[in-house]
Amino acid sequence: MESEFIAWLRARLPEPANPLLGPGDDAALLPCGPAGSCLATVDLLTEGVDFRLAEADARRVGRKALAVNLSDIAAMAGRPTAALIALALPRNGAPQPGGQHLSALELAIELYEGLLPLAQEYDVAIAGGDTNCWDGPLAISITVWGEITPRGPLRRDGAKPGDQILVTGNLGGSILGRHFDFEPRIREALLLNQRYQLHAGLDISDGLSLDLSRLTAESACGAEIVLDRVPISPAAHQLTQSLADGVSPLDHALSDGEDFELLLAVPADEAQRILRDQPLSVPVASIGQFVPQTGLWQVDRDGRRRPLEPRGYEH
Amino acid sequence: MESEFIAWLRARLPEPANPLLGPGDDAALLPCGPAGSCLATVDLLTEGVDFRLAEADARRVGRKALAVNLSDIAAMAGRPTAALIALALPRNGAPQPGGQHLSALELAIELYEGLLPLAQEYDVAIAGGDTNCWDGPLAISITVWGEITPRGPLRRDGAKPGDQILVTGNLGGSILGRHFDFEPRIREALLLNQRYQLHAGLDISDGLSLDLSRLTAESACGAEIVLDRVPISPAAHQLTQSLADGVSPLDHALSDGEDFELLLAVPADEAQRILRDQPLSVPVASIGQFVPQTGLWQVDRDGRRRPLEPRGYEH
Repeated sequence: MESEFIAWLRARLPEPANPLLGPGDDAALLPCGPAGSCLATVDLLTEGVDFRLAEADARRVGRKALAVNLSDIAAMAGRPTAALIALALPRNGAPQPGGQHLSALELAIELYEGLLPLAQEYDVAIAGGDTNCWDGPLAISITVWGEITPRGPLRRDGAKPGDQILVTGNLGGSILGRHFDFEPRIREALLLNQRYQLHAGLDISDGLSLDLSRLTAESACGAEIVLDRVPISPAAHQLTQSLADGVSPLDHALSDGEDFELLLAVPADEAQRILRDQPLSVPVASIGQFVPQTGLWQVDRDGRRRPLEPRGYEH
Repeated sequence: MESEFIAWLRARLPEPANPLLGPGDDAALLPCGPAGSCLATVDLLTEGVDFRLAEADARRVGRKALAVNLSDIAAMAGRPTAALIALALPRNGAPQPGGQHLSALELAIELYEGLLPLAQEYDVAIAGGDTNCWDGPLAISITVWGEITPRGPLRRDGAKPGDQILVTGNLGGSILGRHFDFEPRIREALLLNQRYQLHAGLDISDGLSLDLSRLTAESACGAEIVLDRVPISPAAHQLTQSLADGVSPLDHALSDGEDFELLLAVPADEAQRILRDQPLSVPVASIGQFVPQTGLWQVDRDGRRRPLEPRGYEH
């Protein structure tokens, strides 16, 4: 069915705005930015781990598969430019919510119908891919390219003791729906990195405390979170109420995966400017600071400081 | 297990020879060639379609997953530079020939032990990846970058009536082992494209006649194969003998997939030079010519010309 699918895709794709050699040849030809280097990232999403097709519309799944990659480019403060999409489709198709069943070809088309609007929104060219049927469940692997800006890539290893810990948006409870429908923070990262001096950053994909521990490990320092300052999402509160398992909204905000918000290390004076300016369409909050002593620390409302165990989604 | 695996990988990888930002950050930073654009290709290999772990050593599987991508870069006459590797690993590991069983982590390591020597041979940096466990079988998605040479990419749409059809090596029967252990024709494509004028090319991945029909479709012409000139591999003869199903060695050469040899459209005088020079370590043969009339044609030893149905592996 690959040839049938490629015919559909070629008709469906907008004419490339740049001199790309797109789907149909052995490899795509991608324009590189003026910097002489480009960002590249890959994420592989799988049935049963990242989504369940019986419960999630295939278009939301397709959108998510691209969005998580765009979030990785945002985490480097890059501008996404192109994507390659590899699909392993269940030969007999897959169920959808409401009892509908999609054939393999229909499933491929629905995945693309979900991701193409997002690609268009962020000017990402679909440069090609590989479409296969097999006896396994759906696996989607997307590779995305990005250009870096003159500021260079925003790495994980630049946090310095004294830097503030900033986060965008609010955290926790994404399982209730935001893990599909989140907005990758491309525009936010580009704006912050252009206007302010950032030392390091990543996107919170596996949980605030776990991802923060990775950032501190790369930067050879520690971090201290002031618990009262962690921005907790309404979904985290909702989850605590509905699960009634004793996990607090704060715990969800500290350890739930797939928030896809930005976590930044910013020099204290720059952080003050950002907090005062609030230049984004989502709030930016300071939740603590980086410290010389390695490890994670939590400070409660009485000012007590204790170790914080990093928790989150381990692959 | 991803963090454990990344620790292994970081220790195992050679220090990058270029200023890559490799595994460990949100995205890799890849150097682009002087041409201001780069080649990119992705192939997704799956259990049961491209290999069976119970029958094939995981190292050979890993090598193949990279080699098929290198072959795509060769098909564009490019020089491969970097790869991103996404794995969906069966959570409970996988069987191996001889009754051995590998855990998911061991499987990931064996796959890399298979592909790393090939990456090193062709100077391909492993720039990062995504390593996941799930309840499905093994799926491997590899994206490879390449630089184009000053000659530009070797496309599929440049064949002209009168061009000779050249192939490297010999064809058919790769299922007996060569589909794992083939050599991607990187060096061969670079040398031919540098010394001679080539009009179009691809790598024979799905079968000579099927891939030739794709090349003619992209080039809006037809092609005429002189059957007696098709270079048949010893494996194709062996397969005919062992299967005894009436499929001739020539049929295998015309329609078996995964030869990964080069199929080229070359102006007649240039083709004569190549055939005379034989500049490669593998033979180059002319098997016919491109013609104005669309479709594929076969010419038998009595000079009779009949239509040739494209056959091969349809994804």
